[in-house]
Amino acid sequence: MTTQTDEFLRLHPNPRTAAPEVLSQCLQRLAACAQACQACADACLAEEEVRDLVPCIRLNLDCADVCTAAERVLTRRTAADPGLQGRMLSVCADFCAACARECLSHGDRHEHCRLCSDTCLLCEDACRKALASL
Amino acid sequence: MTTQTDEFLRLHPNPRTAAPEVLSQCLQRLAACAQACQACADACLAEEEVRDLVPCIRLNLDCADVCTAAERVLTRRTAADPGLQGRMLSVCADFCAACARECLSHGDRHEHCRLCSDTCLLCEDACRKALASL
Amino acid sequence: MTTQTDEFLRLHPNPRTAAPEVLSQCLQRLAACAQACQACADACLAEEEVRDLVPCIRLNLDCADVCTAAERVLTRRTAADPGLQGRMLSVCADFCAACARECLSHGDRHEHCRLCSDTCLLCEDACRKALASL
Amino acid sequence: MTTQTDEFLRLHPNPRTAAPEVLSQCLQRLAACAQACQACADACLAEEEVRDLVPCIRLNLDCADVCTAAERVLTRRTAADPGLQGRMLSVCADFCAACARECLSHGDRHEHCRLCSDTCLLCEDACRKALASL
Repeated sequence: MTTQTDEFLRLHPNPRTAAPEVLSQCLQRLAACAQACQACADACLAEEEVRDLVPCIRLNLDCADVCTAAERVLTRRTAADPGLQGRMLSVCADFCAACARECLSHGDRHEHCRLCSDTCLLCEDACRKALASL
Repeated sequence: MTTQTDEFLRLHPNPRTAAPEVLSQCLQRLAACAQACQACADACLAEEEVRDLVPCIRLNLDCADVCTAAERVLTRRTAADPGLQGRMLSVCADFCAACARECLSHGDRHEHCRLCSDTCLLCEDACRKALASL
Repeated sequence: MTTQTDEFLRLHPNPRTAAPEVLSQCLQRLAACAQACQACADACLAEEEVRDLVPCIRLNLDCADVCTAAERVLTRRTAADPGLQGRMLSVCADFCAACARECLSHGDRHEHCRLCSDTCLLCEDACRKALASL
Repeated sequence: MTTQTDEFLRLHPNPRTAAPEVLSQCLQRLAACAQACQACADACLAEEEVRDLVPCIRLNLDCADVCTAAERVLTRRTAADPGLQGRMLSVCADFCAACARECLSHGDRHEHCRLCSDTCLLCEDACRKALASL
């Protein structure tokens, strides 16, 4: 399947990329993870046992902010500094891993947390693969 | 097709929504438009005639920021205020329309601008439909 | 007092602005309000009665996102569209007013909510003045 | 001088912090740096020689996004993970250092770049001090 993300990579004036499909997948998963974490934080706020979910909400909010920043830094290919991009991807992968772990720890009680955990793990994996391809 | 966005809507503790498919499409298009506008701004920066593209870059950056904020406000369904959400969607639709118009005006010379224009129009349409459904 | 915000307004290649002090104050208050709303949301999450504060947390998060987007749109003065900037300021003022009202409603029990309410009101006022000066 | 940032630190339900003045300064400088980088990118777009300033614009945009994310992660003190916060501060300091270097390299021709360079260096220093205090 060719996505809009693939198309923008192809249409850039400097289209050369070591691994366009790896980059494209990472950009899509960062956007999906940012949205998932916002949605999970909001669903947790609506749960009766919100007090127990405070650490989850906090990590969700962090992970959403870091994924949004990483998506923007990785989208920019003009005058790119692979070292800096890699540093950002590495930190983002760490936040995704932490958020996935927290969400999974109560994923049996809240399906949105289980789904968020899956989304974070996919994003972590995509970040580490993109990092390796830089 | 069921997407992750649909799943999060369904798994929310308060899953009632007037038109879940309209909301889901809007959330997905807001995320796509934010990424497209960032990608178009970056591609414009790499063009030799960057000086002619300054108004496009500026609107791209604005539209990306407004879409990201609108996506977050619309993702939150706990203690929602439809009036405020609608105001944000309406402004976001205006930014998308302006960015689409600017990108289209030179879309024959830069394919990324043409693609960005299409993405902005789809997002504008989704925002107006979501606004009508609130 | 001359701030960094004033200096950047003065050093822009197109330094003409109808009311630089109004613009500068609005930019500073938008940044302060975004930070205050994030801090208030986080302080609410740490309160024992977090369940009662869910509507406050939700509006805090919205207001922070909208203020950050408005600050960025208003910071850009190249190829500016006063109509679009005004639309964004107007919506931002509405979010600030709603968040101030919510925070004030329990400001007697949580000092961070009272302080956040004050910050939101100052930001609302600055947005409306900047809107009038565009 | 007591700022709003200090007040929010003091009013948090868990007000204990190893070094509140270090944390407060870092939060204020992150907000200032995010705004400075957005303002510098916009001023660069308005310069006649914008083509020569493309690497500066790109780094400005990156640095603004990373500072905004770092400011939000550091503002949150509920259920904090000092390891993750430190990772984010460290990456943010690296982006600030890179942006400061780029801006300084042509700071003699554009005063806004020189001022942005100073702001980035102050933010880098504040991030490293906050990192050491975690």
